[in-house]
Amino acid sequence: MLSEFELIARHFARSPWGESHGVALGVGDDCALLTPRAGCQLVVSVDTSVAEVHFPADAPPAAIGHRALAVALSDLAAMGAAPRWCLMALTLPAVDDGWLGEFASGFHALCEQSGVALVGGDVTRGQLAISVTVHGEVPVGAALTRHAACPDEVLAVTGTLGGACAGLKAWQAGERDLAQPLLASYLLPQPRLAAGQALRGLASAAIDLSDGLLPDLGHLCEASGVGADLDAAALPLADGLVAALGEEGARQAALAGGDDYELLVSLPSSAWDVARTRLAALGLTLTAVGSCSATPGVRGVAAVDGWQHFPGGKP
Amino acid sequence: MLSEFELIARHFARSPWGESHGVALGVGDDCALLTPRAGCQLVVSVDTSVAEVHFPADAPPAAIGHRALAVALSDLAAMGAAPRWCLMALTLPAVDDGWLGEFASGFHALCEQSGVALVGGDVTRGQLAISVTVHGEVPVGAALTRHAACPDEVLAVTGTLGGACAGLKAWQAGERDLAQPLLASYLLPQPRLAAGQALRGLASAAIDLSDGLLPDLGHLCEASGVGADLDAAALPLADGLVAALGEEGARQAALAGGDDYELLVSLPSSAWDVARTRLAALGLTLTAVGSCSATPGVRGVAAVDGWQHFPGGKP
Repeated sequence: MLSEFELIARHFARSPWGESHGVALGVGDDCALLTPRAGCQLVVSVDTSVAEVHFPADAPPAAIGHRALAVALSDLAAMGAAPRWCLMALTLPAVDDGWLGEFASGFHALCEQSGVALVGGDVTRGQLAISVTVHGEVPVGAALTRHAACPDEVLAVTGTLGGACAGLKAWQAGERDLAQPLLASYLLPQPRLAAGQALRGLASAAIDLSDGLLPDLGHLCEASGVGADLDAAALPLADGLVAALGEEGARQAALAGGDDYELLVSLPSSAWDVARTRLAALGLTLTAVGSCSATPGVRGVAAVDGWQHFPGGKP
Repeated sequence: MLSEFELIARHFARSPWGESHGVALGVGDDCALLTPRAGCQLVVSVDTSVAEVHFPADAPPAAIGHRALAVALSDLAAMGAAPRWCLMALTLPAVDDGWLGEFASGFHALCEQSGVALVGGDVTRGQLAISVTVHGEVPVGAALTRHAACPDEVLAVTGTLGGACAGLKAWQAGERDLAQPLLASYLLPQPRLAAGQALRGLASAAIDLSDGLLPDLGHLCEASGVGADLDAAALPLADGLVAALGEEGARQAALAGGDDYELLVSLPSSAWDVARTRLAALGLTLTAVGSCSATPGVRGVAAVDGWQHFPGGKP
């Protein structure tokens, strides 16, 4: 049996990042020592992924590692932050070196793809869970928040919706091919980091779609003190969603399925063309799905099952 | 049943810290926005406390909240960092509003005592666990690390040893009075934040005693490439330790009991008087327990039971 320290050293100590990435001291001491960039604010968030709550315990370990980091990075994306550093608190029911190696490879691959240095962590014994703290940076005052959406602005989402919900159902039905796009949407979400940074100076408010379009729109509206008129017919459905779930199922998945990790933004119509062009340059669509309103509440969609968080009144 | 968001808002959103503490945006958005101090490095660490692994699940909730933060802050203390901000990832088996209120009160009380702003978090469902990420700051280059101890330096510990181990045994024997000092040592450890900062510029290396004196000394020696000669007779035993555990039990608790969260430092003898005086001004003792050596390994103590992590050779 390897000790906690040996586990950390073997699978998580490797890091291609050094002083040039602001890492004065990485994994291996009581703390990491980091050098923030002058003129920037620090952007921090933590997300815990629990087995059988947030992901299937028997999912491929590399996908579990990827996904645990991706959902945390998605919060940085929603703030328009450039990712810098992360820490991982890993709780394991048992030590399985093969599992850990694959898990770490999925985690490290997304670190490298996103420009995030893993600078610290903790390994404990218990029910499988991964808590990831992410650190990003934004120029002072440039962060996107939830609370500055204004009436008459365009509400828009990146990418497509509903795919993760359908992917979960596919997993539950026995699908195991990660090349299947809907399953990949669920197990290998892509945090919209470049999109969030591209929308700085254009969007007045942003949030990532973790709970689902309607509940997350509710959070944004509540924080900004606005309402919303959605255009249900405009929702960008994931490819194959209607074929997988039927028309009504696809609509519900897009509105309240959750786990899509796209961005929902509010932006003035004057910024629309530039925003769309910038995202197109990143290979990503931006789709208008409605508009903000001075009238509280969300209109334009019928009630959706299985959706409890939304604090405003249902239409 | 309160939603995750309402739980967070009720118990964890309150914060007396604002812009003056570097908090541009606290709990409630996708991320917190923080303003690092110019001329400082950021010091970060994460620690997870799992019920029945790190603390008794039926311990007083306020003590669980205190302890989860204290063990994380102890890592900042070991780096000589001034604490600034924290995030909490809380995993709960069920929602109990009374439990949460007490837990939060213990957590917040230590936040206020230590000058730490809670700026974000996540609440998930699962086995009770608390993962706390802490952020501190040190002037560039002033951090204490594990890797710079030198031969012939004095090895010293703050406070007393073995109390937490005896406190755990007392809890297991039915003691429930938190005014009992040994039990308090275990459930309400005091991170040595002021001591760590006072030792900047004096100590050449530091580590906090979470695993126990011998294993943590092993980590320090390994990182620094030195050995150590301990003076077992010099160990500062917690008050009442011999009465509680007997002489041999007290010795083992002090050497390998763990959970004391004192600091172990290495410092040149020229710095000894100043260091001791500075800590005395904080109401804290500093006790020499041995010296560093160019010869690898730890000498001066007989083998200790129940102690597996130490990477060097046992005497």
